Amino acid sequence: MERVFRYIDDHRDEFVERLRTLLRQPSVAAQNLGMEPCAKLVQQMLDGVGFKTQLFSTDGFPVVYGELEGESEKTLMFYDHYDVQPPEPLELWESDPWDPQIRDGKLYARGASDNKGDLTARLCALEAYQKVMGKLPITIKFVIEGEEEIGSPHLGQFVQEHKNLLKADGCIWEFGHKDLKDIPQIYLGLKGICYVELRAKGAASDQHSSWGTIVPNPAWRLVWALSTLKDEDEKIHIKGFTRRVRKPSKAELQAVQRLDFDEAGWREKFGIRHYLLKLRGNKLKYKHYFEPTCTICGIWSGYTGPGPKTVLPAEARAKIDFRLVPDQDPDEIVKLLRRHLKKHGFDDIEVIGMHGTYPARTPMDDPLVGIVQRTAESIYGVRPGVHPTSAASGPMYVLCQQLGIPAVSTGIGYAHSNTHAPNENIRIGDFLQGIKHIASIVHEFGVTATG
Amino acid sequence: MERVFRYIDDHRDEFVERLRTLLRQPSVAAQNLGMEPCAKLVQQMLDGVGFKTQLFSTDGFPVVYGELEGESEKTLMFYDHYDVQPPEPLELWESDPWDPQIRDGKLYARGASDNKGDLTARLCALEAYQKVMGKLPITIKFVIEGEEEIGSPHLGQFVQEHKNLLKADGCIWEFGHKDLKDIPQIYLGLKGICYVELRAKGAASDQHSSWGTIVPNPAWRLVWALSTLKDEDEKIHIKGFTRRVRKPSKAELQAVQRLDFDEAGWREKFGIRHYLLKLRGNKLKYKHYFEPTCTICGIWSGYTGPGPKTVLPAEARAKIDFRLVPDQDPDEIVKLLRRHLKKHGFDDIEVIGMHGTYPARTPMDDPLVGIVQRTAESIYGVRPGVHPTSAASGPMYVLCQQLGIPAVSTGIGYAHSNTHAPNENIRIGDFLQGIKHIASIVHEFGVTATG
Repeated sequence: MERVFRYIDDHRDEFVERLRTLLRQPSVAAQNLGMEPCAKLVQQMLDGVGFKTQLFSTDGFPVVYGELEGESEKTLMFYDHYDVQPPEPLELWESDPWDPQIRDGKLYARGASDNKGDLTARLCALEAYQKVMGKLPITIKFVIEGEEEIGSPHLGQFVQEHKNLLKADGCIWEFGHKDLKDIPQIYLGLKGICYVELRAKGAASDQHSSWGTIVPNPAWRLVWALSTLKDEDEKIHIKGFTRRVRKPSKAELQAVQRLDFDEAGWREKFGIRHYLLKLRGNKLKYKHYFEPTCTICGIWSGYTGPGPKTVLPAEARAKIDFRLVPDQDPDEIVKLLRRHLKKHGFDDIEVIGMHGTYPARTPMDDPLVGIVQRTAESIYGVRPGVHPTSAASGPMYVLCQQLGIPAVSTGIGYAHSNTHAPNENIRIGDFLQGIKHIASIVHEFGVTATG
Repeated sequence: MERVFRYIDDHRDEFVERLRTLLRQPSVAAQNLGMEPCAKLVQQMLDGVGFKTQLFSTDGFPVVYGELEGESEKTLMFYDHYDVQPPEPLELWESDPWDPQIRDGKLYARGASDNKGDLTARLCALEAYQKVMGKLPITIKFVIEGEEEIGSPHLGQFVQEHKNLLKADGCIWEFGHKDLKDIPQIYLGLKGICYVELRAKGAASDQHSSWGTIVPNPAWRLVWALSTLKDEDEKIHIKGFTRRVRKPSKAELQAVQRLDFDEAGWREKFGIRHYLLKLRGNKLKYKHYFEPTCTICGIWSGYTGPGPKTVLPAEARAKIDFRLVPDQDPDEIVKLLRRHLKKHGFDDIEVIGMHGTYPARTPMDDPLVGIVQRTAESIYGVRPGVHPTSAASGPMYVLCQQLGIPAVSTGIGYAHSNTHAPNENIRIGDFLQGIKHIASIVHEFGVTATG
């Protein structure tokens, strides 16, 4: 593999430039911005590495699919996405989110980390491997969807319609990052998610706030309704919410206890004095990895500009995400939420289900876990952290566990990648290491295929 | 007075054009937009009617002051303001808020009703009176401030520094309107106001919402804090909040009971099915006129754009107004609010006091009340509604009651003027009647001066 690694080092500038080209193409699914051009660009990138590609249409944005035959029929699938989060708030970016700039060895742009950097690194790895070694040892499949950041509403449809294409012996999931101490972290699962918007209405239009005496105020309605969902002890009061929560296995529990979570370092990064409930140690880690959440992602009503304005708002809205753990069901959560609001007298508040994804886990003892772990140790010179699950979400269940495919997630981010936030970035050095790691995984997977 | 009224009718177009000129000049104190040019334009308008004028600087926007000697030293003061509310949300205006347009006999623009229409009507009335009758029977003073819509933070300073100028025997306050049945309404008092912004902070910047497990969420903090202030029964739980509330006098109570509040009509205008707590009749009126409020005027945090975005917000803010009744003290309310939040464990939430105004009432049996009432009946051909207080606020106390000056408010608005809202407008016919009413008040005040 040394020759492959050398090839990667020699083509560093070319690989970075390829990533910058992809980053210049906006692709915000939530805002329907640049999606078709980005799908086509990604398809061209796969073509360039030798894949047989297809753009599969869905009721949403298309899925880019690619297949590249190797020496063996043993198949490794890669899951990535070409959509990115909205770049707002724009004023907090130091450079244009669509104009990738390199500063201090870091590449800044929306999607640099999540997920265009990983996607590009994987393609570069496959190119380098072929250039140096010839045919790949195994068959590779790529599933690159365009709706991950809005909850993958049509990936299930794609899976249903193309099950025959999706046979695989393992899947490398889209992301991974080094922690604050620069230890790479890999993930064997994802939380599910249930994302809703709550809408309260008052008068037909904004009124002078002196009418606050007798005219209903939707901002108050929303605040009161929200305050029934979760209390200051972080208890979620929606009846039945935790009913399906499965306790982590002993192996999962031990894995999380082994994780070196840098409490002080993250606290400093977040700029907070305490974690929620002043938790520490294993209790903190348990809550982060194994407990579901109820998070206000956004709330707005009335006048939000500078200075005072005395207005009685006509409408109030909140965006809420629930992160789910096995075996919670996102569709059921929406029903339980509606029932809760009704029971508490808030049936005037509309619940818009915006998306749902099932939680997913791959067993700790699956062979793929060992391959990703060993190759990471070899490339990074350090044992990676192994997470039974990420605290984040994604459509792993529908593409992998549902089809009996084990999945492990690894990638090129780092602790200050600012994923989903302004000034998203990666370190060029991590990008190159990530390329090498993927090349090694493909190689090792080939060895186990023939061995 | 018939000749004066005829003069007013004959100069209708000229008077409307004068108002349109004033409306074209933006003057949003909250956004520091166009304030100095507007103050100068208003000064010129006073000059044009024969006033000796001065622009008095304050630590905020200047006060336009004017004095015009009449036959008698008896003095009637007019209080108006040249600032207006922010025009947002702009997308709900049918025409540009700064481009006054006439449609169906109505004049649409920000400030058409509040308060540039009234200010202009008063100047037109004084011009018409002089043109027809010669010298005014009484002395007139104008106090026109530029900060009413942001709570008049420097009017107190102006009053302190110029007390000697402000002697008067009565004051006509800035506003008034016809109700849904086109009955003119006059007001003998105003509620006070205490306007605050609450600010909660979490992490130093927005984070991926999967961190909602263990990183504090300022949107939740704010929601929980707000929910302790007022409950769904409209009870305000800030200790001491109602301690200084004085019961209305028998005359005030009877006056409010006599008011013909068109419950069904207003409900239809607001587009609501019920008033708060399903109140009706005297209980509804009592709450509207005599009770203090706690109103969320604005709240915002996190992602508020289209589609889902999974973000853990770094900050959350709310704008709250408390409408106060005699003898509540706005400065004390801020202190009580801070104490309340601390007591409930929310001392992480910052309270920014944005402005405060004392509540004000003029006794029901003051002679000025009779003059305004009788002249209104004569001009409008119907007995006006007499309100012991408006549910709205303004700096009446600091300019009038504090100096022993009785004050009554009357003006040219109507039930659909959309004050503080998009598509603010007046009816041209009301504008002309208002000019005649002011001319009559000046005349009657003169009769009582000599009689």
